[in-house]
Amino acid sequence: MPMLKDPSQKYKPFQSNLKITKRSWPDKTFSKPPRWLSTDLRDGNQSLPDPMSVAEKKVYFQKLIDIGFKEIEVAFPSASQIDFDFTRWCVENAPDDVSIQVLSPCRPNLIKRTIESLKGAKKATVHIYLATSDCFRNIVFGLSKEETLKLATECTELVRSLTKDDPTQKATHWDFEFSPETFSDTHPDYVLKVCESVKQAWGPTAELPIIFNLPATVEMTTPNVYADQIEYFSQNISNRETVCISLHPHNDRGCAVAAAELAQLGGADRVEGCLFGNGERTGNVDLVTLALNLYTQGISPKLDFSDMKSVIDVVEKCNKIPVHARAPYGGQLVVCAFSGSHQDAIKKGFKKQDGKQFWQMPYLPLDPADIGRTYEAIIRVNSQSGKGGSAWIILRNLELDLPRGLQIEFSKIVQDQSEYLERELKVEEIVNLFKKQYLIKLDDHDDDFSDAFKLDHYEIKNKSAKERSITATISKAGQGKIDLAGEGNGPISAFTNALANKVGASIKVVHYHEHSLGDDSNSQAASYIGCTVDGQQFWGVGIDEDVSVAGFNAVVSCFNQCVAKGVISV
Amino acid sequence: MPMLKDPSQKYKPFQSNLKITKRSWPDKTFSKPPRWLSTDLRDGNQSLPDPMSVAEKKVYFQKLIDIGFKEIEVAFPSASQIDFDFTRWCVENAPDDVSIQVLSPCRPNLIKRTIESLKGAKKATVHIYLATSDCFRNIVFGLSKEETLKLATECTELVRSLTKDDPTQKATHWDFEFSPETFSDTHPDYVLKVCESVKQAWGPTAELPIIFNLPATVEMTTPNVYADQIEYFSQNISNRETVCISLHPHNDRGCAVAAAELAQLGGADRVEGCLFGNGERTGNVDLVTLALNLYTQGISPKLDFSDMKSVIDVVEKCNKIPVHARAPYGGQLVVCAFSGSHQDAIKKGFKKQDGKQFWQMPYLPLDPADIGRTYEAIIRVNSQSGKGGSAWIILRNLELDLPRGLQIEFSKIVQDQSEYLERELKVEEIVNLFKKQYLIKLDDHDDDFSDAFKLDHYEIKNKSAKERSITATISKAGQGKIDLAGEGNGPISAFTNALANKVGASIKVVHYHEHSLGDDSNSQAASYIGCTVDGQQFWGVGIDEDVSVAGFNAVVSCFNQCVAKGVISV
Repeated sequence: MPMLKDPSQKYKPFQSNLKITKRSWPDKTFSKPPRWLSTDLRDGNQSLPDPMSVAEKKVYFQKLIDIGFKEIEVAFPSASQIDFDFTRWCVENAPDDVSIQVLSPCRPNLIKRTIESLKGAKKATVHIYLATSDCFRNIVFGLSKEETLKLATECTELVRSLTKDDPTQKATHWDFEFSPETFSDTHPDYVLKVCESVKQAWGPTAELPIIFNLPATVEMTTPNVYADQIEYFSQNISNRETVCISLHPHNDRGCAVAAAELAQLGGADRVEGCLFGNGERTGNVDLVTLALNLYTQGISPKLDFSDMKSVIDVVEKCNKIPVHARAPYGGQLVVCAFSGSHQDAIKKGFKKQDGKQFWQMPYLPLDPADIGRTYEAIIRVNSQSGKGGSAWIILRNLELDLPRGLQIEFSKIVQDQSEYLERELKVEEIVNLFKKQYLIKLDDHDDDFSDAFKLDHYEIKNKSAKERSITATISKAGQGKIDLAGEGNGPISAFTNALANKVGASIKVVHYHEHSLGDDSNSQAASYIGCTVDGQQFWGVGIDEDVSVAGFNAVVSCFNQCVAKGVISV
Repeated sequence: MPMLKDPSQKYKPFQSNLKITKRSWPDKTFSKPPRWLSTDLRDGNQSLPDPMSVAEKKVYFQKLIDIGFKEIEVAFPSASQIDFDFTRWCVENAPDDVSIQVLSPCRPNLIKRTIESLKGAKKATVHIYLATSDCFRNIVFGLSKEETLKLATECTELVRSLTKDDPTQKATHWDFEFSPETFSDTHPDYVLKVCESVKQAWGPTAELPIIFNLPATVEMTTPNVYADQIEYFSQNISNRETVCISLHPHNDRGCAVAAAELAQLGGADRVEGCLFGNGERTGNVDLVTLALNLYTQGISPKLDFSDMKSVIDVVEKCNKIPVHARAPYGGQLVVCAFSGSHQDAIKKGFKKQDGKQFWQMPYLPLDPADIGRTYEAIIRVNSQSGKGGSAWIILRNLELDLPRGLQIEFSKIVQDQSEYLERELKVEEIVNLFKKQYLIKLDDHDDDFSDAFKLDHYEIKNKSAKERSITATISKAGQGKIDLAGEGNGPISAFTNALANKVGASIKVVHYHEHSLGDDSNSQAASYIGCTVDGQQFWGVGIDEDVSVAGFNAVVSCFNQCVAKGVISV
């Protein structure tokens, strides 16, 4: 047994320095969606191994518009000519109700260049940031608390003078966003002090609030603490009605979605993030998950993910990072069930869902149809799957609603094949396995089963209300015809007895199920018959426009399996 | 503008039915790790499109042991012969202190088969489950509340009679786990009622507690509600000391990690999950993230992820699902920084980290070295990167600690190249770009720069304390030698003046930096010189064992660039 390596003692537990007096968020629930800000083209793009080309950015921008975003951070215009030029393109191409947001550090020359990039915009948001935590002030900037506050205030004054106070800029609706970067690692009272000063410098109103973006630049601890920090800020910033509190959680501890949700309960008004959680390191909070989490609580997110596939296509093509198979809502595997008991439950759920007002489905919190996925894709079959999965596939593909006993028999056949191949079976493979096992020919492409017996003709007579006599012929290529004659209390038992007489075996029908296929008068019938043949159980399946023939075919299906297995010899 | 598609009204907001009187978890922090249960081989495996082969399961099992898991759920033995046989293999190969856990539904014949699979185990945990929510009871099972309670109790009695009450089973240390499946969607008082009855049937003690696993089978709402539910259960189950509360959160709303963390604060003792969050749909909670989240709060998780790469290798090979590039801790991109300001901050952070007791690093909550990653991999450079990233690469690869002005100049060159190629640059490409720009030949593989001038020899004389005179020769293949002579207040200025005299240009040294390479007496010196040449600024880099020659080489490096650009003609 090797020693566990564990230098965990070099990490200091997080201290929030927060004095909680009124914590109300744990008793709240959602009542409306937040304002959404997509930073896919800025924070997302900057963290890609291969950043987007300009053409890709334009496609992405259009997709964000289509989804319904009204605030989009598009670039860091002072960083490169490419970013500047793309901002210009956005300004010139954005719908009137979409605000173009750009980011600048607190450096006057960069702020000037940044604001130049927005000239003529209908709506624009200037976003400046300055780190406030001890760690960043000391290690990165060498700025005291006083110097930091002064710099933030002066830069806000500069933005003001170049935007809403500049008479030549009146055509633009200006928003202003200030981020005390590393908010969640900063003493909460110092953040308030900086933000009060910035607020005064900007001069917001209830109609034109200032945006304070309070980022978890690095996720420091459990998400309830972030919610506490946000609620504390919300309770203590003055003139709260003139402030829009924005969230910008990163996902270092895997809790960004939770942090954004709990902090909204704590009073936040706006969320910044990326589709499928792109962004530096572990990414920004995933806006797809946040939006659809609201959706499944009956609250419209005002973002449209009804064509999820096209969203994923754009994101994957532009980011060159795949959406994970298990990503909430969007992942390829999240509306699939492989486990037998899960499949069984979902199958029952769909049966009971019809006509209900509210969605209630075992294992599926969201109707796959709401994000453009079909039910067919939901249930997939591997060696871990039980009867429900295979039965579902047969139902959806052949319209055959197998009785329970037949489900169990067939699922064993599927499981054996899946274990043999050591992989998931495709839908087509399962369908073919079924047809082969029960000798079903549905169309011209199917096997002819030329070495199996088939019913040629039959004639039934009523001897009395409960007595039938039958004569029939079955045949097989190269083996001539076999004439049968027998009696029973119905056509199936008469036919079975006739067969039993001929081959000298005991054949008893122990299960019989039948249903029509399709819903017009020309529809076919499907028949499922369970027989014991000399003590062994076999299932047969028969299909025909004549319901009697469907039943005889099902018996012949059993008979052929018995012959193939040597239980009956002819 | 297309209408947003939005049938969100078909979803009912979640109702917890919980009457909170004492909520204490939001004021708590972690003090110890939970008991961990890996269900990678059961819940994880069952949800894979291609389940593991037996050989892969064995490799995975060994890896779980190596990481330090003491409780491992290995199979659903009644589901298939493969699962049964693998359980036998685990029983026969597990270390004495590892409990082999297996799952069975509440069906007597399956329970019997399940317990058979454990015969002879040193430690074993029998885990049975039964769904308790209205949705599942009504839709899936058609069982009333009374029938469900009765079935759970009777199955517990059966397990007891076949395990700890069976005199032939005394060699095994038996644990028992009951899961009220769909716990988080069940009325909390009904769950308590079922669990009280099951507890009585099992008869636990404080030394041998019963495990109640309280799953979020489907994640229903925000994670604070799950924490409330767990705390309520913890406060109200009788004989709390005889109960181990286990969590099993799924990730449908992207909050499984948060749910597991907040519910631990709420009183839970044990967590079930999978490495990197494998499992049905969105997966089970990710145990890697939970463990390392504790680690960065100074608490040893008692699981060893110091060789993360080998863990990822096993997981990816067996699951055939890649670990996402942004997965916390394990993802390929999460210890990388592309943004210039991030790179700059991290570079400064590493400089100040030396000798500190606690880890304190901008943007990096975990020391990459603790999970077997090197610092070299952290900083990657694309067109979004600033000076810090390139400078870091040069420092780590060539040991050259570039002065700020040179960082800025070089980063522009890197950015241009990255924009030109529209992709991230590899480390080697950045290093070669540097060598080529500043004409640095460090080893035999490097370019000879045969069409550039090189210093042949020099001779310096002291005229007085502040006066130097120099004679020197530089040469270039095919162009003969150029003899230089000049004076200055030091060797560099004398050499620069000599060059200026010769070519008739104004050359002024405006920056000079120098440091040794390596730390013995044979080490080389690196010299960085910033010159203005007829008003334009150039940087040169020189390396030599003789610090004076390093300086002259740096001037020659400038000189060559000026010649190449036509600023100087010779």
